[in-house]
Amino acid sequence: MTTFSVLILGSSSASPTLKRNPTSQLLNVNEQYYLVDCGEGTQTRLRENKIKFQRINHIFISHLHGDHYLGLIGLLQTMHLLGRTTPINIYAPEPLKEIIDLHLKYSGGFLRYPLHFNAISSKSSEIILENEQVKVSTVILDHRIPCTGFVFKEQPKLRKIKPQAIAYYRIPKYAINQLKKGEDFTHPDTGEIIKNELVTSKPAKSYSYAFCSDTKYSESIIPQIKDVDLLYHEATFMENESKRAVETYHSTAKQAATIALKANVNSLIIGHFSNRYLNLDGLLEEAKSIFENTQLAFENKWFEIAQSQ
Amino acid sequence: MTTFSVLILGSSSASPTLKRNPTSQLLNVNEQYYLVDCGEGTQTRLRENKIKFQRINHIFISHLHGDHYLGLIGLLQTMHLLGRTTPINIYAPEPLKEIIDLHLKYSGGFLRYPLHFNAISSKSSEIILENEQVKVSTVILDHRIPCTGFVFKEQPKLRKIKPQAIAYYRIPKYAINQLKKGEDFTHPDTGEIIKNELVTSKPAKSYSYAFCSDTKYSESIIPQIKDVDLLYHEATFMENESKRAVETYHSTAKQAATIALKANVNSLIIGHFSNRYLNLDGLLEEAKSIFENTQLAFENKWFEIAQSQ
Repeated sequence: MTTFSVLILGSSSASPTLKRNPTSQLLNVNEQYYLVDCGEGTQTRLRENKIKFQRINHIFISHLHGDHYLGLIGLLQTMHLLGRTTPINIYAPEPLKEIIDLHLKYSGGFLRYPLHFNAISSKSSEIILENEQVKVSTVILDHRIPCTGFVFKEQPKLRKIKPQAIAYYRIPKYAINQLKKGEDFTHPDTGEIIKNELVTSKPAKSYSYAFCSDTKYSESIIPQIKDVDLLYHEATFMENESKRAVETYHSTAKQAATIALKANVNSLIIGHFSNRYLNLDGLLEEAKSIFENTQLAFENKWFEIAQSQ
Repeated sequence: MTTFSVLILGSSSASPTLKRNPTSQLLNVNEQYYLVDCGEGTQTRLRENKIKFQRINHIFISHLHGDHYLGLIGLLQTMHLLGRTTPINIYAPEPLKEIIDLHLKYSGGFLRYPLHFNAISSKSSEIILENEQVKVSTVILDHRIPCTGFVFKEQPKLRKIKPQAIAYYRIPKYAINQLKKGEDFTHPDTGEIIKNELVTSKPAKSYSYAFCSDTKYSESIIPQIKDVDLLYHEATFMENESKRAVETYHSTAKQAATIALKANVNSLIIGHFSNRYLNLDGLLEEAKSIFENTQLAFENKWFEIAQSQ
């Protein structure tokens, strides 16, 4: 079973409201958790969703506006209090390290687990994490201060073995792994070469997710997010506030949908809604008029990108 | 009508739980609001209680453990976004200024209202605010890092005029204010002196509230909190964890109650409960065995110290 899904922990812009928190999301890739932005209230939302904090090993912060990271210091502190000893990896703009250190200094605190801080560039896209599950690269967004999005791509999966063909061609067990990786097999006795395609079928799909937090409409991000299965793109305003959107380096719902269309993504989530919208139907309609497969971010909602064999 | 009441915004120690937030309280003195500590989630609790952020002009922070101030930066930012222009006054340990400045620097932010920062001493008790409503002084607590409590005392109120006596002694209107302040009146024509007590009665009671956030059991605070109407004293643990309380510079429920008893206060609220207590009955019982007039802090509960003529 493959899991590749996103949990919305905060969908509001700027300030929390009674129903909405500032930006935070949790990406679940086959039960490995990746936290993306960490606005105030993230801990409570994680608890509501019964997410064990200690299962989070990687935290990505898009930029240093408070609504995207002010929940981080408390979360790090709680992880310490819960007895964490395994390292946490943070990927964020460089000054966040100084901010974390200052808080720890004056709280007389220390963390009993290692904190690996990875400063990310706001100048050019780069790969910031690659492990067995995913490859994560940055997207350079156009915001008032340095701001990056993140693209999570599942690593290519192993080819599937055809059991009947394996038996037919008398493939020994020790060769199974190399076949899964796509290699051919040579019988050591006869020298006969068994082509990989005869005994395997193509691997399960590798899914991808792009997170574009705060940004003006910017077509320069399209090459980096092209063809992803799911795109989250901020949509702070509706189109009748497009002037305000430009002034504040934010996007409208129509602009988010236009990016989704031009980047040929499969589906779109919009979020980071201005507090002026008590009802979000207008934002959704506006986006759907351009890109039908759009959904609204909402607190504690899981978006399943994949859940299949 | 006099109002003097405390709203609990957070009653948890260290980390938020599903029901409880880290420490924060709002003191209402005749519709003037004073925010005391500001743990993460304070904004949301204020919203739940329909408290207009812009009515808060004074914020007191007891110490720089995250659970007592990590909601502050976001609150200051929201006040800015809401268009605040009136000054905000912060009373806190000096390094908090450096922390606020660092956040503002990297968020590319500024506040469009003046922020008056008042560094408080952790060495000796001092008066940190005196206005028409209240006098606020600090209490030196005994915690792992510098930590102060706060005592809010209503200013003495004006004496009450006896209308019939005013008429009888033919006191002119212009003299009413001086009589309310306790002065005698001399008839300009006759030189006759009317003693104040003849035409006024004693003023309404001035109430007092003491907030003792994080502290070990410390009898040295008693002179500063003596006779207050309401004492909030932390009670992180029960007595069977008294060793842990000493180690972590916290108090037990019994210790909080002992302080209340020895300081001759009228009533006690305990709070800052460790997450280990899912049910708080034991803490309450333990405190009541020493000091009967004890109540548990609970989110969104108002404690009315006075609401009378």
